[in-house]
Amino acid sequence: MKVRIFDTTLRDGEQTPGVSLTSNEKLEIAIKLDELGVDVIEAGSAITSKGEREGIKLITRENLNAEICSFVRALPVDIDAALECDVDSVHLVIPTSDIHMKYKLKKTPQETMECAINAVEYAKDHGLIVELSAEDATRSDVNFLIGLFNKGIESGANRVCVCDTVGVLTPEKSIELFKTLSENIKVPISVHCHNDFGMATANTVCAIRGGAVQCHVTVNGVGERAGNASLEEVVMALQVLYGYETNIKTEKLYETSRIVSRLMKLPVPPNKAIVGDNAFAHEAGIHVDGLIKNTQTYEPIQPELVGNKRRIILGKHSGRAALKYKLDLMGIEITDKQLNEIYERVKHFGDLGKYISDVDLKAIISEVTGSHAEEKIKLDELTVVSGNKITPIASVKLHFAGEDRHLIETSYGVGPVDAAINAVKRAISGVADVRLEEYRVEAMSGGTDALIEVVVKLRRGCEVVEVRKSHGDIIMASVLAVMEGINMLL
Amino acid sequence: MKVRIFDTTLRDGEQTPGVSLTSNEKLEIAIKLDELGVDVIEAGSAITSKGEREGIKLITRENLNAEICSFVRALPVDIDAALECDVDSVHLVIPTSDIHMKYKLKKTPQETMECAINAVEYAKDHGLIVELSAEDATRSDVNFLIGLFNKGIESGANRVCVCDTVGVLTPEKSIELFKTLSENIKVPISVHCHNDFGMATANTVCAIRGGAVQCHVTVNGVGERAGNASLEEVVMALQVLYGYETNIKTEKLYETSRIVSRLMKLPVPPNKAIVGDNAFAHEAGIHVDGLIKNTQTYEPIQPELVGNKRRIILGKHSGRAALKYKLDLMGIEITDKQLNEIYERVKHFGDLGKYISDVDLKAIISEVTGSHAEEKIKLDELTVVSGNKITPIASVKLHFAGEDRHLIETSYGVGPVDAAINAVKRAISGVADVRLEEYRVEAMSGGTDALIEVVVKLRRGCEVVEVRKSHGDIIMASVLAVMEGINMLL
Repeated sequence: MKVRIFDTTLRDGEQTPGVSLTSNEKLEIAIKLDELGVDVIEAGSAITSKGEREGIKLITRENLNAEICSFVRALPVDIDAALECDVDSVHLVIPTSDIHMKYKLKKTPQETMECAINAVEYAKDHGLIVELSAEDATRSDVNFLIGLFNKGIESGANRVCVCDTVGVLTPEKSIELFKTLSENIKVPISVHCHNDFGMATANTVCAIRGGAVQCHVTVNGVGERAGNASLEEVVMALQVLYGYETNIKTEKLYETSRIVSRLMKLPVPPNKAIVGDNAFAHEAGIHVDGLIKNTQTYEPIQPELVGNKRRIILGKHSGRAALKYKLDLMGIEITDKQLNEIYERVKHFGDLGKYISDVDLKAIISEVTGSHAEEKIKLDELTVVSGNKITPIASVKLHFAGEDRHLIETSYGVGPVDAAINAVKRAISGVADVRLEEYRVEAMSGGTDALIEVVVKLRRGCEVVEVRKSHGDIIMASVLAVMEGINMLL
Repeated sequence: MKVRIFDTTLRDGEQTPGVSLTSNEKLEIAIKLDELGVDVIEAGSAITSKGEREGIKLITRENLNAEICSFVRALPVDIDAALECDVDSVHLVIPTSDIHMKYKLKKTPQETMECAINAVEYAKDHGLIVELSAEDATRSDVNFLIGLFNKGIESGANRVCVCDTVGVLTPEKSIELFKTLSENIKVPISVHCHNDFGMATANTVCAIRGGAVQCHVTVNGVGERAGNASLEEVVMALQVLYGYETNIKTEKLYETSRIVSRLMKLPVPPNKAIVGDNAFAHEAGIHVDGLIKNTQTYEPIQPELVGNKRRIILGKHSGRAALKYKLDLMGIEITDKQLNEIYERVKHFGDLGKYISDVDLKAIISEVTGSHAEEKIKLDELTVVSGNKITPIASVKLHFAGEDRHLIETSYGVGPVDAAINAVKRAISGVADVRLEEYRVEAMSGGTDALIEVVVKLRRGCEVVEVRKSHGDIIMASVLAVMEGINMLL
């Protein structure tokens, strides 16, 4: 069976507190979702605002393969707003639980049903595909739910949707509920789960097991409160663990995740399943040891399947085999005695509560083997002046090892870091064509004197290096990271 | 039934790539876990290193209520290391899947079984409680698994544990597997789930439904790859959705989550279920509207139950009711006309893709009502000089509004930001006792000229304010955030 993927990243996902996308950002995400292969894109809630409607219009004008949908309440005014945006379908939501009908809607069940039916008829009269959706369905009376759905279907609803609005569904209840519903409802059934107890993915796949044929998901599981069922988890669980098919091009999952993260300014947690940067990272000794022998020992799927990659991390849990594996990958040949020495130092690092980066490892190797990789360009002097009433300026004095030559350059910038890096860029521009591709300050907490971690990615032709540098001074961290990257590339 | 909580934050959790705790940090977490009420603390893997053993010893010496456990392989050398640390129990792990036995262990099933039995006997002979654990159990032959467990029990194993090592279990399979096991095994059964497909929590609670009585979990779901089943999700799902009991003091969940996050340097994602800062945050109009009428409409549990709190966020999805609710909370009285005006501006903000912070809202209110809250202290001048061969210094010139007075101060710091903030602190020290409680740079990407976001939390007595400031210059962002916070507190 092929499960339909209804993506609500741009509607439920965009309701994540603090997230607000511009129309163009919404369009960029919609195009990526279409390339990923989702069946439906819920582009927003047209009634919300003028800006929202502009965003939806930009998307409908793009003529994507996916069905473009707007969220609407069971109100003509909402449906009119959706029509104005020229969407294919509406996700027409009506609350069905006693608590929602009584306190929020202030309507009796009978009035609620009439309201839903009128809205379905209105939407159908205007040529829309209608997905009739029951809000808080999992806390609703199931007979009322079936009755409402069937009245809606008589009025023309094409699909129905069951929303677990506050995430209280459990896997067993999900299977049972969707079995009951699919025995009593003759149109495709959709499921919409929230993650308040961390079970949105499981509840979604269990709904499919029960008889649902479409699921509402968001990229990275973004959404209000604890978020929605996560697209990448649901798709991979359905495909790998249950053998269902979807139209998703799974190898684009990682890339799509990162685009949504960047535009929503919501970092993807490293341990996010499927798309996290640690999802296929291995540190513990026995894990890496097993992995070297057969990647299946500690990986359920190959990272390439979802566009992610395997990472080997050294730490106090790392065994000799992991270290050897990593040194082999780095093309470094050493004696057994040196391996032991490096191994002890790596372990010592870990015991001190420190993380061993590739750069740290290289420093240890240099010390142990006595083979100091000479720095081609060294930072001699750096001076930065900044303030609220002056243009930040910086000067650098670099020393070129081979040539016994010094070079001084100055520059300005929007801030002191920018000024300093601009000065470095200028100084090396005549020496090598190195480009700063990415500059990132990692989330950190502490006082203003705490270590700050800077990550830079530099490119020279096809070669790319990523350097991570910690320092109490963000300018120094930035400049040292860039200098180290330049030396690695030269 | 009361479910036992086996916490492996300090073992599986500490295997998170990049995480490395010192012995004292491990002790701090162990004490908090004990206060939280976990039944077992897996303090580490004693064989790993000298430092690891020191950490475990610190914990066993503390005489906590929880059973203190060490991970061991089925090897006397591992058990000896655990004994040296004076633990109560061992989590004795042996692989049972064909792929693990063949490729990693390089043993036949018969040899594997002998190895396990010998190790159980050795541990029991030395007075340890033994939890015999099958690695990759969910990809193992179930009859072999039952046979091995029962042989181990004959040799004295007190409990057995089923590890879903690569996270391939599904909820239905979990119920079935643990039913089969509990029919054939007469000691308590434990479950240990990984989150590779985002289903660790669901698989864990389903194992309990099937017959397991203990579960392995980590705070915040930390752990290798996509992490382990998350303590807070499992405990709350068991208690709220299934009616099981545990010994966990749930109101300490949020606090415990933050301690682990701080010491492991792994931020808690805002949308993390139960303990995320957005777990009880509401933005969308209909949500806040419902919430004002009855919090149960959009909350499965009261946030206080887990030590978290409700947050109302304004954005383009916010309706008038939400705005009014928030203004009421802020103690601001306005006319209906002013409310409409503020409402339109808030919506406009959202359409531009901007997030409306409390500070932004206050600015809008001032503009609309014409009641400018005067800044008590204003930044007149800031100058910073920094570099690699000088001590970073800063000077600030502040203007005190009421008094028409200027004050100049200077200071140094580990970096330019620290120097600037130190100068501000000095300048205001005579005026008010404001303390900088938290300083944080939010993860950001882009060039060195991209906006950087700084978040500061300031305290004056019982009052706390959090200010968020973006600027291309990190020094300016930091100083402006602190100045704004000071003005809010005065």
